[in-house]
Amino acid sequence: MPLVKMVFSSPEAAEEAFYRALQTGDLELMMGVWDEDDNISCVHPGSARLDGRAAVRQSWEQIFKSSPGMAFRLTDVSHYYDKNLAVHVLHEHIRIGRDRHHQPPVVATNVYRLTANGWRMVMHHGSATRPFSVDPTSLH
Amino acid sequence: MPLVKMVFSSPEAAEEAFYRALQTGDLELMMGVWDEDDNISCVHPGSARLDGRAAVRQSWEQIFKSSPGMAFRLTDVSHYYDKNLAVHVLHEHIRIGRDRHHQPPVVATNVYRLTANGWRMVMHHGSATRPFSVDPTSLH
Repeated sequence: MPLVKMVFSSPEAAEEAFYRALQTGDLELMMGVWDEDDNISCVHPGSARLDGRAAVRQSWEQIFKSSPGMAFRLTDVSHYYDKNLAVHVLHEHIRIGRDRHHQPPVVATNVYRLTANGWRMVMHHGSATRPFSVDPTSLH
Repeated sequence: MPLVKMVFSSPEAAEEAFYRALQTGDLELMMGVWDEDDNISCVHPGSARLDGRAAVRQSWEQIFKSSPGMAFRLTDVSHYYDKNLAVHVLHEHIRIGRDRHHQPPVVATNVYRLTANGWRMVMHHGSATRPFSVDPTSLH
C-alpha cells in the first residue's frame, strides 16, 4: 500500500496517473487511481469484464509482469461531465516494447467519480478497433 | 423523423427504448434515443468508434438491414449516477435470428445525459468477451 494516499483534483489528473501507471508498470499507482469502493469494473480489449478491486488488481499485476513496456499517445478525447461523474472517450495509440510502430488504436471509455478522496476511476473499458463493417458473426 | 418527440424520464427508460429499437430494428426509435447534440459516440463490437449522429445512424441502418433479428437478455447491470449523467455497465446476451443459442456475452458501457428533452444516450461502447488472459498481441 502507498504511504501517502493519492488525491486527484480532477478527472484529468486521475487519467494522467492511470496512463503513467500503465507506462511505468506501477501497480500501486494504478490501484491508487481506482475507487476504493468495490463497485469498479475493468474490460481489457477482447476480455470479459472484471468486477471489484481484487480482480482488477490481479489483471494489472499479470499485465505488468508480462509486459515488455508500453508507451501511450492519446487522441480524440471526448468528455461528458457532471458535478461528481465524468466520462472520457479516447483513442489509445500504443507502442509495445522496442517496436517503433503503433498497434491499431484501442478505443477506451474511462469513467471517474468524485469520492471523499478526490476523483477516482470506476470503469475502464478498452476494445481493439478495425473499420466498421456489418459482420454476420457480430451483428451488433 | 418521428412526429412525436420522445422524452425519457430516466436513464432506464432510455435504455429500455434502446434495446427495444435493437430488437425491432426500428431506426427512428433508435435515433430518438440518442442525444440530438452531435457529441455522441458509438463503438460496435470490434469496430472503430463512430462519432456524430450521421455516422451513428448509418451504422444502425446497415446493421438493421442485414440483421435476421436479434433478441436481447441483459444481466449484471452496474450503475454510476449523478444528477445529469448516468453510466450503465452490463452484459448483453444476444440470440441471432432463429438460433436458440446465445452468442458469448457482449459487455456494454452505456452513457446517458439529461438534456432539455429528457435522458438521451451519448455513448454506447460494446465489445465481445472471452475470459481474461494476458495476450502478447493485446497487452492491455
